[in-house]
Amino acid sequence: MHSGRSRNDEVATCIRLVLREELTGLLEEIHELRQTLLTLAEKNTETLMPGFTHMQHAQPTTLAHHLCAHEAALGRDFDRTQDAYSRVNLCPLGAAAFASTGFNLNRKRTQELLGFEGLLENSMDAVSTRDFLIECASGFTNLMINLSRMAEELVIWSSSEFNFIELDDMYASTSSIMPQKKNPDTAELMRGKTGVAVGALMSLITICKGLPLSYNRDLQEATPNIWRSVETVRASVRVMKGMIKTMKVHPEVLAAQSVTGFTTATELADTFVRETGIPFRTAHQIVGMLAREMEKPNLEKIDSVAEIVLGESLSSRGLTEKMVKEALNPVSNVKRRKIAGGPAPEEMRNYLSKRQTELELNRQEIATLKDITDSAFENLLATVNEYRKA
Amino acid sequence: MHSGRSRNDEVATCIRLVLREELTGLLEEIHELRQTLLTLAEKNTETLMPGFTHMQHAQPTTLAHHLCAHEAALGRDFDRTQDAYSRVNLCPLGAAAFASTGFNLNRKRTQELLGFEGLLENSMDAVSTRDFLIECASGFTNLMINLSRMAEELVIWSSSEFNFIELDDMYASTSSIMPQKKNPDTAELMRGKTGVAVGALMSLITICKGLPLSYNRDLQEATPNIWRSVETVRASVRVMKGMIKTMKVHPEVLAAQSVTGFTTATELADTFVRETGIPFRTAHQIVGMLAREMEKPNLEKIDSVAEIVLGESLSSRGLTEKMVKEALNPVSNVKRRKIAGGPAPEEMRNYLSKRQTELELNRQEIATLKDITDSAFENLLATVNEYRKA
Amino acid sequence: MHSGRSRNDEVATCIRLVLREELTGLLEEIHELRQTLLTLAEKNTETLMPGFTHMQHAQPTTLAHHLCAHEAALGRDFDRTQDAYSRVNLCPLGAAAFASTGFNLNRKRTQELLGFEGLLENSMDAVSTRDFLIECASGFTNLMINLSRMAEELVIWSSSEFNFIELDDMYASTSSIMPQKKNPDTAELMRGKTGVAVGALMSLITICKGLPLSYNRDLQEATPNIWRSVETVRASVRVMKGMIKTMKVHPEVLAAQSVTGFTTATELADTFVRETGIPFRTAHQIVGMLAREMEKPNLEKIDSVAEIVLGESLSSRGLTEKMVKEALNPVSNVKRRKIAGGPAPEEMRNYLSKRQTELELNRQEIATLKDITDSAFENLLATVNEYRKA
Amino acid sequence: MHSGRSRNDEVATCIRLVLREELTGLLEEIHELRQTLLTLAEKNTETLMPGFTHMQHAQPTTLAHHLCAHEAALGRDFDRTQDAYSRVNLCPLGAAAFASTGFNLNRKRTQELLGFEGLLENSMDAVSTRDFLIECASGFTNLMINLSRMAEELVIWSSSEFNFIELDDMYASTSSIMPQKKNPDTAELMRGKTGVAVGALMSLITICKGLPLSYNRDLQEATPNIWRSVETVRASVRVMKGMIKTMKVHPEVLAAQSVTGFTTATELADTFVRETGIPFRTAHQIVGMLAREMEKPNLEKIDSVAEIVLGESLSSRGLTEKMVKEALNPVSNVKRRKIAGGPAPEEMRNYLSKRQTELELNRQEIATLKDITDSAFENLLATVNEYRKA
Repeated sequence: MHSGRSRNDEVATCIRLVLREELTGLLEEIHELRQTLLTLAEKNTETLMPGFTHMQHAQPTTLAHHLCAHEAALGRDFDRTQDAYSRVNLCPLGAAAFASTGFNLNRKRTQELLGFEGLLENSMDAVSTRDFLIECASGFTNLMINLSRMAEELVIWSSSEFNFIELDDMYASTSSIMPQKKNPDTAELMRGKTGVAVGALMSLITICKGLPLSYNRDLQEATPNIWRSVETVRASVRVMKGMIKTMKVHPEVLAAQSVTGFTTATELADTFVRETGIPFRTAHQIVGMLAREMEKPNLEKIDSVAEIVLGESLSSRGLTEKMVKEALNPVSNVKRRKIAGGPAPEEMRNYLSKRQTELELNRQEIATLKDITDSAFENLLATVNEYRKA
Repeated sequence: MHSGRSRNDEVATCIRLVLREELTGLLEEIHELRQTLLTLAEKNTETLMPGFTHMQHAQPTTLAHHLCAHEAALGRDFDRTQDAYSRVNLCPLGAAAFASTGFNLNRKRTQELLGFEGLLENSMDAVSTRDFLIECASGFTNLMINLSRMAEELVIWSSSEFNFIELDDMYASTSSIMPQKKNPDTAELMRGKTGVAVGALMSLITICKGLPLSYNRDLQEATPNIWRSVETVRASVRVMKGMIKTMKVHPEVLAAQSVTGFTTATELADTFVRETGIPFRTAHQIVGMLAREMEKPNLEKIDSVAEIVLGESLSSRGLTEKMVKEALNPVSNVKRRKIAGGPAPEEMRNYLSKRQTELELNRQEIATLKDITDSAFENLLATVNEYRKA
Repeated sequence: MHSGRSRNDEVATCIRLVLREELTGLLEEIHELRQTLLTLAEKNTETLMPGFTHMQHAQPTTLAHHLCAHEAALGRDFDRTQDAYSRVNLCPLGAAAFASTGFNLNRKRTQELLGFEGLLENSMDAVSTRDFLIECASGFTNLMINLSRMAEELVIWSSSEFNFIELDDMYASTSSIMPQKKNPDTAELMRGKTGVAVGALMSLITICKGLPLSYNRDLQEATPNIWRSVETVRASVRVMKGMIKTMKVHPEVLAAQSVTGFTTATELADTFVRETGIPFRTAHQIVGMLAREMEKPNLEKIDSVAEIVLGESLSSRGLTEKMVKEALNPVSNVKRRKIAGGPAPEEMRNYLSKRQTELELNRQEIATLKDITDSAFENLLATVNEYRKA
Repeated sequence: MHSGRSRNDEVATCIRLVLREELTGLLEEIHELRQTLLTLAEKNTETLMPGFTHMQHAQPTTLAHHLCAHEAALGRDFDRTQDAYSRVNLCPLGAAAFASTGFNLNRKRTQELLGFEGLLENSMDAVSTRDFLIECASGFTNLMINLSRMAEELVIWSSSEFNFIELDDMYASTSSIMPQKKNPDTAELMRGKTGVAVGALMSLITICKGLPLSYNRDLQEATPNIWRSVETVRASVRVMKGMIKTMKVHPEVLAAQSVTGFTTATELADTFVRETGIPFRTAHQIVGMLAREMEKPNLEKIDSVAEIVLGESLSSRGLTEKMVKEALNPVSNVKRRKIAGGPAPEEMRNYLSKRQTELELNRQEIATLKDITDSAFENLLATVNEYRKA
């Protein structure tokens, strides 16, 4: 044993070495899940479905649009994991018990041999801080919250009332007596596992609050939480990929539901405004009255309501039966929403192509991280061997 | 009203505009607190104090070294706030209710007019996600945990048993009957206010867990938490700056305590190793036996113990009285710990100079963020005026 | 001012006086919500609906049975609130700063005058403890979790896919353009408000962790959390009562869904066992094969499957068409489940009558609590007036 | 297998059976810790120590008084555990999957055979609720918070600055090189383990929030949390008992510190009021002026200050040197505080005797709980044997 070394800085170094590996693995897994979502989205840029607000049908959209919302959230989880990585990948070694050492260690050299990006320089800070664990646990929680939202949808969509999808047998359980009943157990479990990440985060916060410097034994309780959390989170990302990849979508149900609830009302009012120049308020009023009576109004009906509200027909202001039909048609409806980030198939294809480029970039970033640590370890091994020979 | 606009994207935009301002303010305040710590550290690179592990005296260090541990943690809080800023400063506008709009909006243009760095592109994601709130609340919690550790020390250091410091009257309360008693109320309150940040984070997590897409009214409950948290955190950073700036340090108490508890034992053993070439294990054994008997052993005593343990005296292996005295002297002791991040005054001055450079860089980064949003708003105003004239 | 009094014991006393009132109000409100659920259940002992596990139809049950599950949970919330009340309703007065006082106060007398049930005797404990806040906040959280489960169902049941209920306009929002769309905003908000209770609990826990005795100023941060929590919880209970009371149930939808998904499979297998004496395993196997093919098998079909599985028909072992029909009929199916706590209308009526008795008992307990504090305050007023005259 | 049984009710039953055992064990362990505290208190009713507010010396008290504050908190933890027990000890068996069963089970009979106090009657509630886990986890958290406050004191009191106690070697660690340094590792670990209880609670809350009825697979994630929490909490209570039992108190340090900081100021002012009839405000003013100058004022000094403040000496109003000495003497000072719950040795002995009676009562309650479950199991075994013979 060597007094330039202490358990305090060694423990801190080991945690960071292992966590760095876990984060790299997680980055890869998030990447794969995102790829899976994008691939499914690419096949479903024209698959109509109802878009929900407040769990009510609001406007028609596409499955691609919906899936990409989840992929975008996971993209941010990826970025947060990268940011956390940069603060994990710092070297506390040489801090010894907390006061560094009188031996002439070259901390920069050990840092490089271990493939760390930089030093945790102040030696008291180096052994005392666990803020990187709280940061990682927070990121894991954010990611699990995002997965829980996907899982919730998979559970609801698997209900017989919704029937939007069917999960693969591998991710569902049946009972011997009710073989037609498929329980979305895996999605439920994942939703529940959010609790693991949240609990670990809260444990870490509770442990670190109000601890004076430098090292206190309380910190020994911190580490198991991060391992439990990262293991759960990584498994959840992998399982979600499998569920998404293997699930069977019911496009006919989605399409049928895409128009129930007069989801095209907004587009109909917008059409009135665009084509006849009446104010939004008036257009809304007309559509509101129509909505009370029927789901698919025709021009004649529209005109009669417009007479009451506006004092003149909309056809007299240029509205045609064709325009009405187009507004009520979910396909044209969606096609029209082609601004950046909208569900129009044309725009979705642009968007997907940009996301694929982003994903390719992320893939290279992961490869770089792995190259750095891999070659550091090769170098470390070579150096150790040299010393051995000497 | 305009159907290209919806409360959903407007609300999301407003939250981000306000939060961006708050984060900028927080960056400035963390910056000032760090500056305050560095300034005090610069004056105390030679102020001896006991370094603690497990709240026990372990080795002598300096007040500068201790203060810089806190500054380093705050530096990471600064970086995390910057990272969060980059994910807050994105524009959801144009997402409308969630499905974007059929009107030909130029989302890139509104983004630029509002000074956002980029788009939250997918329109469903844009109105549904609150992961940026969880990220900010997590960062605030990490920061408050760091402040709670400082506050805990200020409370303990103000006790009559420790008597390391005296807080300024502005940050303490007295009672009419016990005017000599100064309660460190402000530090206690700050320690307690950690609860605000943690509570807000947990509220946000609870709210978002398992919510299906897209917008749900639950999210209305999310926002008050972030405002309560950011307000508390910003005030805490400002108050901590005031406490640190105005507190009176008792250098004589710190110096006296720096050697109680045989804090120089480690250095003495290291000296034996360095100067006589005996193994660490043996050196430890000798020091252990000495420590049981006295706090300040001399060469004679050391030799007699070495005879028992090692079978020969250490003076016969080159150890001199001068070396022993130097090892037991806290000043020489600290001076020796001059590797990167160590407490030696010489190294601390190097370190402090690097931190000041870093701080200057951070100051420029804050200025840049402010310039971008300021000039965007000027441009926005000018654009609005142009439209008005037209 | 009187040195037998201190802010520390006065503050602790005031918190307990106010919290006691809030808890009494909460007990009344939970009571009313339970009454509302029981009243609705009484009207729906024969209203068929699908019973869910894993959000899948599992077996038919009744709306009364489902509603009573929620009422039972609220009954435990009521009991927990009562238990907490007994630990809140204790008197810290006379503890002074923490060390009691040398003046000859009669603590028992002030306790009685304030209507407290007993003393918080040890004077250091009396001013230092906030465990009663954590206990209350925990109870509030448990209650909000229960409400969040009800709220989640109201949201899902209001979807156009489920369409089990329609919330009253007072508890829903519509948009001018989609008047047929009713957003279950209130239920969503309540689900979100669970976050308030959880956040408050976590704040309290964070504040109290690791505080040495006796009073510390951190505790000042504790109290706002309990007020925010109790206010939210009480409002949520009241609003839930209103939502349940005014919602429109769609019995025809519930009835139709009660049999989709072959929910009677379990009863059919049970019938085979009961009537023909074959083992459960075999019965399950037969039903499993039937389920793969159709939802409403007849005796002929059953016999042909039984021949394959068992080597003989079930009709040869006494099974009749009538028995099969009864098993497949959701009404007879539910009627049969008449053991304690089962959904059979006959049993439900027994059960409901027992719950009403329990509710009446709880009503008297609330009245007693109120009588005690009311008469204590009358007595206090009288005593004060006497002193004034003297 | 029997369709009157389902995994859902069986799992719920098993959790309750095991948790019931754990709670009984915990009750015994809390009981022993309380006994240990009372025993130590009985030996220290006259051991002076400084009483703290804001971690500042405020008034003298005794170690017995301080220890009893902790015992009182643990008494409430005991009561909360008993209350939780009564809601855990209910029988879900017979609820089957959630809809009960058409078989004519006698649920009352199985409940009695398993030694449960009552039924969880509504069969849907019986399998769906996990509120008893949240209640237990909340109670465990409250208990750990109380232990963390004790642990914090043990850590601070072990510092060389405080030096109030010395922990036994079994609960401390030393380093080979610093054998005189004793790290209070066990107390630190316990403080850290508070995080386990808090994390488990938060996991449970996160899991249960917003789950629709009846059983969902998420609940499978709930149970590991309660086991981890209860195991940690029980071990912590046992270890705390050991630490308290074996620690060495330094009465001479405590006594010396009991008067530093003019802790007798309050009593001196009270004496002025009692003996000379001057108003409190004036008494405070006089003591305030004295406190600025010295810690142990004599009658002459008091008179000279009183002349300035009041215009006359206090000796002219009957104050004697003896009264002043008594007020300044920590022993007389503490003796005077003999109202209910005060630190006067006489009152403490009364108080301790009442607590011992309470403890004896609690011991009998535990025995009763154990008798009930033990004899139920004997009866169950006998019944099973009877059936076997039949």
